[in-house]
Amino acid sequence: MTGAPDGKILALTGGVGGAKLVLGLSDELDAQALQVVVNTGDDFEHLGLPICPDIDTLLYTLSGLANPELGWGIDGETWHVLDSLERLGGETWFRLGDRDLGTHLWRREQLSQGHSLSQVTRELAMRLGIEVCVYPMTDDPVRTTVITEQGELAFQHYFVREQCEPAVNGFRFEGISGARPNRDVLSLLQGGSLSRVVICPSNPYVSVDPILQVPGLWLALRDSPADVVLVSPIVAGRALKGPAAKMMDELGIPATATGVAEHYQNRYPGLVDHFVIDESDATLVSVIEEIGLATAVTSTVMKSREDKQRLARFCIELESA
Amino acid sequence: MTGAPDGKILALTGGVGGAKLVLGLSDELDAQALQVVVNTGDDFEHLGLPICPDIDTLLYTLSGLANPELGWGIDGETWHVLDSLERLGGETWFRLGDRDLGTHLWRREQLSQGHSLSQVTRELAMRLGIEVCVYPMTDDPVRTTVITEQGELAFQHYFVREQCEPAVNGFRFEGISGARPNRDVLSLLQGGSLSRVVICPSNPYVSVDPILQVPGLWLALRDSPADVVLVSPIVAGRALKGPAAKMMDELGIPATATGVAEHYQNRYPGLVDHFVIDESDATLVSVIEEIGLATAVTSTVMKSREDKQRLARFCIELESA
Repeated sequence: MTGAPDGKILALTGGVGGAKLVLGLSDELDAQALQVVVNTGDDFEHLGLPICPDIDTLLYTLSGLANPELGWGIDGETWHVLDSLERLGGETWFRLGDRDLGTHLWRREQLSQGHSLSQVTRELAMRLGIEVCVYPMTDDPVRTTVITEQGELAFQHYFVREQCEPAVNGFRFEGISGARPNRDVLSLLQGGSLSRVVICPSNPYVSVDPILQVPGLWLALRDSPADVVLVSPIVAGRALKGPAAKMMDELGIPATATGVAEHYQNRYPGLVDHFVIDESDATLVSVIEEIGLATAVTSTVMKSREDKQRLARFCIELESA
Repeated sequence: MTGAPDGKILALTGGVGGAKLVLGLSDELDAQALQVVVNTGDDFEHLGLPICPDIDTLLYTLSGLANPELGWGIDGETWHVLDSLERLGGETWFRLGDRDLGTHLWRREQLSQGHSLSQVTRELAMRLGIEVCVYPMTDDPVRTTVITEQGELAFQHYFVREQCEPAVNGFRFEGISGARPNRDVLSLLQGGSLSRVVICPSNPYVSVDPILQVPGLWLALRDSPADVVLVSPIVAGRALKGPAAKMMDELGIPATATGVAEHYQNRYPGLVDHFVIDESDATLVSVIEEIGLATAVTSTVMKSREDKQRLARFCIELESA
């Protein structure tokens, strides 16, 4: 049987790379058949505004607002606020565009009125014309800290300000032990309507680990009747987007699909039912299967809209284990 | 003797109308000879940002950034943040331009680091290249409330959102009784370096009254050896800018320079040494002098830069009482 026609799909995603596959999934599925849980470990407060980079990247991508060249922010964006702030000597390393700032100001107002991040995200999606349900992994603050050779850095300081240059020793997710998983996601996992979980090709360390380490979440995923499809974010020894391969190198882990498989098998044994790798990594299949992951090979590089839809279909239609 | 050459001048001002005369004064005086104290009763928090309309109007005017057509905000301003916020259904009645928002974000950061409004204002002026000392009347929050026939309205709700339409019954300055006057302004008034105070043609009720009602301030002004020159904001029965004349009508006070004179003489007896009125009101001189104010007549309408400089010179060179 195929996974999709019978039930809902839950996608786990970080920012840009994962959002591409979610866009493909949303093209291939009815809106009510797709739910998405998003990493919030990248969130931070900047200039007094609550910034949720992964949520916004996903919502801008799904609503067609995303900037296709930058891979983040809004298409046709302008930078007048930041120019003015720069003139005053303010902090401008985090590139907040004018239209993007409208989102953050709006979110700040909503949160200050006592709405939860989940409620605000649902409302934001609705106002952007998005029908797919998008859930933050938790409403509680979780903040990814990158432990580097230059000391600990808040994620956006590492990622944007330092441009991922400091070598990485590890990660810490501040607040994770007290974070409560999104209730709707838990209900979905505990109910019978979910047929498949897709872990998008997002960074294992700073996009997917925070989601899976929200207390209760990965065990609920493992114990759910839905089977779990993981798409490798590493293709031919390189991350298609972001610092995943560089991080693996620095952590002494082979920056390959095999390294990704080991990461998931060691940390979350029994979670992943299917591992989808790129055709350029086809020679790794037997090694990965020895680690205990059923492996499927396809083209995972998503450049065009059709690429995204094709990979989405592949993940949806993959035979259940 | 003339007031200026021997000492410093302190100007009291609200927003647009007053800022014009301050610009003239700054053209006519060395930077260290001019100090300005600004109304903060219009200040409010909006979208989580600390907005200081009178301070910003003055600083934008003195730095040449001001929008000459709107009379507020920044020249060449764009509105992308507000467009984005509007799309999300956020509050857009208070027209915050993109570049202007840079100022508010910067100010928010500075205040959140524990700097006082005085310190932040001094720093902002410096970064905008302004040498004149600009002081908020107080660092403590004072909020003007307009008592209208439709109930009480926060000042900006009355002024911007409701466009001054509700009829006015009175005013209340929340927080004024606990507000401490700006220390530098007090020192200046108590020291011997000040030769003249100019009350700019600002709204008596919502721009100048808040300043004068900061505890200790108007008595320090009255008791200072400097003489006080008041420029009428009402010319030929009309306010050149803003709702002053409309307010006077609604309060049952003649909307004339005479009404202005009575307002100051009743509330602040002995404060004003010279009252400068427009030539179109020359017939009122004898009535006003009966009220007890020495009156001087000149053209007070400031359209061109030269108009501003000429009125400034008139105020500076007026013979001391």
